[in-house]
Amino acid sequence: MTDTLSPAVQICRDLIRCPSVTPAEGGALSTLENLLAGAGFDVSRVTFTDEDTPDVENLFATIGTGKPHFVFAGHTDVVPVGDEAAWTHGPFDGTIADGMLHGRGTADMKGGVAAFAAAALDYVKAHPDGIPGQISFLITGDEEGPAINGTVKLLEWAKEQGHEFDACIVGEPTNPDALGDAIKVGRRGSLTGTIKVNGTQGHVAYQHLADNPVPGMLKLLSAVSEVELDKGNERFQPSNLEITTVDVGNTATNVIPAHVMAKFNIRFNDQWSVKSLSEHVTKLLSDAAPEGLDWSIEYAKEATDSFLTHDEALIQTLSNSIKTVTGRTPELSTGGGTSDARFIKNYCAVVEFGLVGQTMHKVDEHVAVADIEQLADIYFRFLQDYFQA
Amino acid sequence: MTDTLSPAVQICRDLIRCPSVTPAEGGALSTLENLLAGAGFDVSRVTFTDEDTPDVENLFATIGTGKPHFVFAGHTDVVPVGDEAAWTHGPFDGTIADGMLHGRGTADMKGGVAAFAAAALDYVKAHPDGIPGQISFLITGDEEGPAINGTVKLLEWAKEQGHEFDACIVGEPTNPDALGDAIKVGRRGSLTGTIKVNGTQGHVAYQHLADNPVPGMLKLLSAVSEVELDKGNERFQPSNLEITTVDVGNTATNVIPAHVMAKFNIRFNDQWSVKSLSEHVTKLLSDAAPEGLDWSIEYAKEATDSFLTHDEALIQTLSNSIKTVTGRTPELSTGGGTSDARFIKNYCAVVEFGLVGQTMHKVDEHVAVADIEQLADIYFRFLQDYFQA
Repeated sequence: MTDTLSPAVQICRDLIRCPSVTPAEGGALSTLENLLAGAGFDVSRVTFTDEDTPDVENLFATIGTGKPHFVFAGHTDVVPVGDEAAWTHGPFDGTIADGMLHGRGTADMKGGVAAFAAAALDYVKAHPDGIPGQISFLITGDEEGPAINGTVKLLEWAKEQGHEFDACIVGEPTNPDALGDAIKVGRRGSLTGTIKVNGTQGHVAYQHLADNPVPGMLKLLSAVSEVELDKGNERFQPSNLEITTVDVGNTATNVIPAHVMAKFNIRFNDQWSVKSLSEHVTKLLSDAAPEGLDWSIEYAKEATDSFLTHDEALIQTLSNSIKTVTGRTPELSTGGGTSDARFIKNYCAVVEFGLVGQTMHKVDEHVAVADIEQLADIYFRFLQDYFQA
Repeated sequence: MTDTLSPAVQICRDLIRCPSVTPAEGGALSTLENLLAGAGFDVSRVTFTDEDTPDVENLFATIGTGKPHFVFAGHTDVVPVGDEAAWTHGPFDGTIADGMLHGRGTADMKGGVAAFAAAALDYVKAHPDGIPGQISFLITGDEEGPAINGTVKLLEWAKEQGHEFDACIVGEPTNPDALGDAIKVGRRGSLTGTIKVNGTQGHVAYQHLADNPVPGMLKLLSAVSEVELDKGNERFQPSNLEITTVDVGNTATNVIPAHVMAKFNIRFNDQWSVKSLSEHVTKLLSDAAPEGLDWSIEYAKEATDSFLTHDEALIQTLSNSIKTVTGRTPELSTGGGTSDARFIKNYCAVVEFGLVGQTMHKVDEHVAVADIEQLADIYFRFLQDYFQA
């Protein structure tokens, strides 16, 4: 049945057959390079290195000149297969069964990358005299890993090469149930805090000679656990704080401990910045701290602010293409975790739309063959409308 | 200056020079055996064994017949010396300097055992035709260790030998600051509980798919942390609950954990039994548990009830001796941790009185030479009054 496969599905199957578990390239970037170079793209393979992390290969490809400059962004690396014996079909076989393409990375996100390529190749072929602007590919092999030698450095590299982007689609799986469910038009920020309370160790039978730090910690945590930070807004769900750990590590039941530590993570919307939110939480904790309590709060440096894409034309053009192909009007979502969009938003307007994410990172990851074909069709219609506008 | 030492101080120094760190006998029991046997005591050396714990030697000595049958109870084993280089005088040298006898176990409780022996020997010597009743020594080498092959088994053994005790003094260091400060006339009970809360693990960005167990645990712990269990009474301080540990052990700041565990220990007075207190705490927790919370409470089997000695004659006789020798009226205390008195109280009336405990278990453990002499005097006067009554 190979002869009946659409180009997008063929490309996806070829990519699935490359075992590109981070940081291995596995042949996936070469597959993409051959395709794009064959269609006239100028392809660069860029390897980045850093301390204490593996070298990672990335790919930048571009065609056309002038404005607007549109970018497809994504990754060809995949997470490990887990228990390989539990897979119904080999995770790197690219088996098609009952209308589904099986394999690690079909949803996250070789299906998206394949649809990018099929759409771009079609669009380039439809403009034998040159496209009205510029299309680039920003593809990393370090999205599922430490993300140090990937998109961040590739964006810097492209900027140094003189590239200025106007808009970007990231092809991560954004749909909870069916293709067309949701475009991600922003992401919440993330803030992690560590609370420490110090007391004085002692014997439980002589509690007046000790100072148990746990009651003080309970007061601090109770002040932020299940706190309503905001009510959310049209584009964002309410900000949410989760206490991720509380640890004393005392194995002696007759000893009052000297220290207790707790961590929390907040996913927050555009009503807060890292600065305003950390100040707010610190105030909640300070107000709850009993007088004389020896406590501290420290926020992790990796905190990221939320962002919301305000390029309504970009959002509307993509929504229309989705509606035309699937019949669905996508929700404009800002939920879920972080993605490389948080780095790209510093360079240009960015939205995310890809396949259905239900099986991503799981055993038997798969997507509908029809969804890959429809996704390529959506991206193709998007390019047509985007460059006509 | 050896020739000027009183018998009690000499005996104590001899015992200090025996390195009897649990479970080693170190010559301490032999020293005591020689002394007591020489004065006419019938001395038994009894070794107890059990699974997974070292064999331990114990000593039972007795003199006289008939009622009343009085017992001196204590131990010759000591805790390890810790950082030996930090000691001003060798921990097993028995150095006397500036009126202080230095060494591991001087306070806890070779000083008490030495005063027992000196007092008993004097009393026996004062009654060449036989004492008016019976005096026994119940000395273990397993008080500072697992306490499995010590007092509990020695009491059973003595009972099997036909011994029935009327009253007992345990020679543990009971005085916070000065000799005569306090007699212990009872002990609080001890109850340890383990609380577990189960939730559902998940990603912090998708909290609606997870169920964080920490907020529920905070509600449970807040209901018992710093709770007033009672106001105490004439003989007992208020019961007290300490949360000794809270543990999640989650190192991933983007993961909502599935489980959290906490432990607490309660030292409680005679207004509660293990049963009534565990029921009360379970109710406090149940009332605080949010609906649907998956939680459990389990109480450790080693829980012990409190006890209070009601033998007013025993207490008064000892108090009078203390007042006569030191000029102080001892407080009748039930504070502090557990001791072997919790086992002895099942056989006879028991009180505790010994030296000043400030340096026990510490580097440079020491007691005043004058205190040892006064303690022997107190015990001697007690024996006189007790057997005259």
